[in-house]
Amino acid sequence: MFARVVRPVLTLKLTTLLVAALPMLTLVQSVASAQGRSRIGEFTLANGMRGVVVSDHRAPVVTHMVWYRVGAADEPPGVSGIAHFLEHLMFKATDKIPAGEFSKIVSRIGGQDNAFTGHDATAYFQRVAKDRLPTVMKMEADRMVNLKLAEKEVLTERDVILEERRSRVENNPWAILDEQMSAALYQSHPYKIPVIGWMHEMAKLSPADAVAFYKQHYAPNNAILVVTGDVTLEEVKKLAEEAFGSIPANPAIKPRQRPTEPEHRAARRIEYHDARAGKPTLSRTYFAPSYSTAKPGEAEALDILMKIVGSGATSRLYQKLVSDQKIASSAGGYYAASGLDSGKIGLYAVPAEGQTLDAVEAGIDAVIAEVKEKGVTAEELARAKTGYIAEFVYESDNQATLARRYGWGLVVGRTIAQIDAWPEMISKVTLEDVKSAAEKHLDVRRSVTGRLVPVADGKTPVPGRT
Amino acid sequence: MFARVVRPVLTLKLTTLLVAALPMLTLVQSVASAQGRSRIGEFTLANGMRGVVVSDHRAPVVTHMVWYRVGAADEPPGVSGIAHFLEHLMFKATDKIPAGEFSKIVSRIGGQDNAFTGHDATAYFQRVAKDRLPTVMKMEADRMVNLKLAEKEVLTERDVILEERRSRVENNPWAILDEQMSAALYQSHPYKIPVIGWMHEMAKLSPADAVAFYKQHYAPNNAILVVTGDVTLEEVKKLAEEAFGSIPANPAIKPRQRPTEPEHRAARRIEYHDARAGKPTLSRTYFAPSYSTAKPGEAEALDILMKIVGSGATSRLYQKLVSDQKIASSAGGYYAASGLDSGKIGLYAVPAEGQTLDAVEAGIDAVIAEVKEKGVTAEELARAKTGYIAEFVYESDNQATLARRYGWGLVVGRTIAQIDAWPEMISKVTLEDVKSAAEKHLDVRRSVTGRLVPVADGKTPVPGRT
Repeated sequence: MFARVVRPVLTLKLTTLLVAALPMLTLVQSVASAQGRSRIGEFTLANGMRGVVVSDHRAPVVTHMVWYRVGAADEPPGVSGIAHFLEHLMFKATDKIPAGEFSKIVSRIGGQDNAFTGHDATAYFQRVAKDRLPTVMKMEADRMVNLKLAEKEVLTERDVILEERRSRVENNPWAILDEQMSAALYQSHPYKIPVIGWMHEMAKLSPADAVAFYKQHYAPNNAILVVTGDVTLEEVKKLAEEAFGSIPANPAIKPRQRPTEPEHRAARRIEYHDARAGKPTLSRTYFAPSYSTAKPGEAEALDILMKIVGSGATSRLYQKLVSDQKIASSAGGYYAASGLDSGKIGLYAVPAEGQTLDAVEAGIDAVIAEVKEKGVTAEELARAKTGYIAEFVYESDNQATLARRYGWGLVVGRTIAQIDAWPEMISKVTLEDVKSAAEKHLDVRRSVTGRLVPVADGKTPVPGRT
Repeated sequence: MFARVVRPVLTLKLTTLLVAALPMLTLVQSVASAQGRSRIGEFTLANGMRGVVVSDHRAPVVTHMVWYRVGAADEPPGVSGIAHFLEHLMFKATDKIPAGEFSKIVSRIGGQDNAFTGHDATAYFQRVAKDRLPTVMKMEADRMVNLKLAEKEVLTERDVILEERRSRVENNPWAILDEQMSAALYQSHPYKIPVIGWMHEMAKLSPADAVAFYKQHYAPNNAILVVTGDVTLEEVKKLAEEAFGSIPANPAIKPRQRPTEPEHRAARRIEYHDARAGKPTLSRTYFAPSYSTAKPGEAEALDILMKIVGSGATSRLYQKLVSDQKIASSAGGYYAASGLDSGKIGLYAVPAEGQTLDAVEAGIDAVIAEVKEKGVTAEELARAKTGYIAEFVYESDNQATLARRYGWGLVVGRTIAQIDAWPEMISKVTLEDVKSAAEKHLDVRRSVTGRLVPVADGKTPVPGRT
C-alpha cells in the first residue's frame, strides 16, 4: 500500500558534494545574491503557527512542508518509536481522506510527497504545481487534527514499522553497532534511543499511545509551515490563514525541555560481533555541541575541522590512512551539528586487506593527535571555507534543500537571520578557532569507540530476545 | 543539624559474613524453627497500606519501618536525585513537628532513626522501646502526608545533598567509575542514573519538584509498614489503624512500569583516568535478572554461582588471582539480586604490585571461562548452600535485618511465602543449574568492563562542567 511512499528515518550525513575551487570573493557575492533572489519572508498566524516563504519564480512549482517541533527524543520513557510510528499513521484516514489515499491523491495531481522523523523534528512535505498548493495545504491542515486511527489499521501499520526495523537495523550489522554506540555515548539524554525505536517497545505500541502522542504534539502552535517556490509571502499567508487559521492552538504545548547530559568522564568502547558483517569497521563518536548549543562560532569551527579531517578523498583521514599508509580501504569523519540538544563528531575507518582494527585505530589516533597539537593549515582552512560556501550557494538553488534548511533551523530554535548568516560565520573561522575546537572536543573521555568484528561469536544475536 | 542522622544512599553489597561449616540438616531445621519462632503475620488496612509483623519477644524493643514503593528509578526524566532529596526533606517540618526535630524526638525517647533511598524503594525506620511504638508510628503517619516544605529549608538542604554527592562520589574515583559503568551498562532503563542524582540536575532541584514527587508517591496505598520485635500482629494492626487508618488512599497510584532494556548485543568497555586513584582497578558488571524477574530457581543459582566465584577468600577469583597466581592484591565478585526490574553480576580485581590490568583481566576471564565450561564442584555447591542458609538463620536473629528483608521483598513484589522459601529454594539448586546460569548470564555481550587508571590525563575532571 505504501510502496510508492518512502519515509526514511532521518539520519544526518554530511553531503559529500564535490566543489570546484571558486574564488572566495565571488562566492560571498553569490551568497548575498542568492539570498536577495530568494526573497525570504515569514509570518505567524493568530493560533501560533509560524510560516516561512522563500519565493523563487523560475518554475511554476512549489515545495510545501509542515514541520512539527516533536521527534523521537520527545517520546515518553518506554514508548520508543511512537514519533516515527505516528508519522506512518498520518497517512491513514481523516473524515475527508480514506486510509492510504493521501499519497495517491498527491500523486494523482502530479505531485510527490514524503515525510521523515528525526530525534527533534517530524516533517511532511509535498512538491506540486503551484496551483495545487491550496489542495495539499488543506490536506495537511486536515490531518493535523482530524486523524482517525482505527485499531485494525494501527496494528497493521505496526507490522510495517517492525518490518522496517528488521530490514534497516536487524539486517545491518553496522546499524546495530551504531545503535549500541549511541546507547553507550549518551548517559541520560534520549538521543541514546534509536529514532525507529527499540524492537521490544515497538512491538507493544498501541492505538492509545499513538493518539496520546498525536494529541499532545500535533497542533498549529507546534508547527512550522515552509513553502518554497513560485509563490509570494502574501499568497502563502492568505492560503495558510484559510487552511490552518481555524485550528485552535493547544495551550498545553510548552517549549521542549529534555534531560541534559552529565559530564562525560570516561572513554567507552564497544565491540559488536556479527558474522554477517563482511568487513571489520572502526567507528568513533564524540559527544559535542550543536549549532543550537555551541558558543558563538564554535559549531562553525567544528564544521571546518571535520571537513578537513574527514570529508572526502582530500581529507586528512583519507589521505593518511588510505592514500599514504594504505592501512585502510576507506576512512572519514563528519560533524552532526543539527541536534536541538547536542551534536556529535564521528570518525570511521575500514582496514585494508590484511590490516587490523588496531592499525586503523592507531592511524586515526595519530591524525587526531596531530590536529589537536598543530591545528590545520591556512590552505586547508581556505579550501574548507570555499567548499562550504559553494555548497551553501548550490543548495540554495534547490527548493527542497532550501525548505529543509529553514524548516530544520526553525524547529531547533534558530532564527532566519542566523540561518542566513552561516556563510558569513564560516568565513570568519580562524586557524586558532579550529585548533581550539579540536583540542576541546576531540576529547576521548567524551567518546565511544566501536568495533564491528565479522565473527560468529558462538551464536548470532536474535532480535527481540533478551 | 543532621549530624546524628546518617542517611546513606543505598548500595547493595554482599555481606561477607564468615560462616562456620554447620551440617546442612541442622541448618534447615534452624530455618524452620527461626521462622516458627518469628511468628510472621500480615494485614492490609482499608486505605491499602500493607503491614507485616515479625514478633520476637526476647527483648522489649521494636524496629519500625515504613517502606515506600518509590525510588530513584521512578524519577521523572531530568529530575535525578529527587527521591533521595525528598528522603532528606522528610526530616523537615510538619504542623506537629518543627523542622529538624524528628530525629531529636526519636533520640530523646531513647531511640535511633535512619532512612535510605535506593532505585526501587525509600524507607524510614526507628528502633525504640516497645512502649514508644505508638509515638514513632504517629510521627511517620504525620509526615506521610503533612510535610510542609519551606523554600528556604529546601534550598539549604539541597546544599547538603550536593555536599553529600561531592564527598561520596566526586572525591571517590571508584564511585565515579561505577557511575560511568552504570550509564554504559543500561541502554534504556533508569537504573543507569545514580540514586543520588547527576550533579547538574541536583543543583536545579526545586521545592516544586519535591512537592510534586511527594504528592505523587507518598500515600498509604504506596507504603508498607514493617514492625519487628516485642509486639503481636493484633497490637500492630490496632496501632496502625489508629495512626495511618484515617489517611486516604491516593487513587492515582498505579503499579510501577518502567522502560525495559533492549537486547544487549555488544561488550562495552570504559576507561576512567584519575590521578587520585591510588591503585588501578578492574571492574566488570553483567546485566542479569533479579529475584523479581528471573525464571524460578535462576536467581538462586546465580546467588550460588557468585558465592563460589567471588565471595571471600575461599572464592575462585581470590584463590586463583590472589593466592595462587599472585597477580592481584584483591579480587572478588557479587550478584546484586534485589532489583525490581533487573539484577547485575559484578567482578573486580586490583593488580598486585608490578602486575597489570591486562593480567588481572585475563585472570578473571580464565576463571569465568572455566566455570562456564566445567561448572562448579559438588563440594563448592554444598559449601555455598551451607553458607547461605547459615547467613539466613543468623540474619533472622536480627530485628533490623529481618525488617529489611521483608520490607525490601514486599516492595519489589515478592510474597512473604516466597521470601521465607528462600533457604529451601537455595537447597534445591543443582550443579547443572549453576553451570546453566554461568553459561547464560556471564555473557560478555551483556557486560561493561571498567578500568580505573591512576594517571593525571592532562587534567583532573571538574565536577559540574561539561
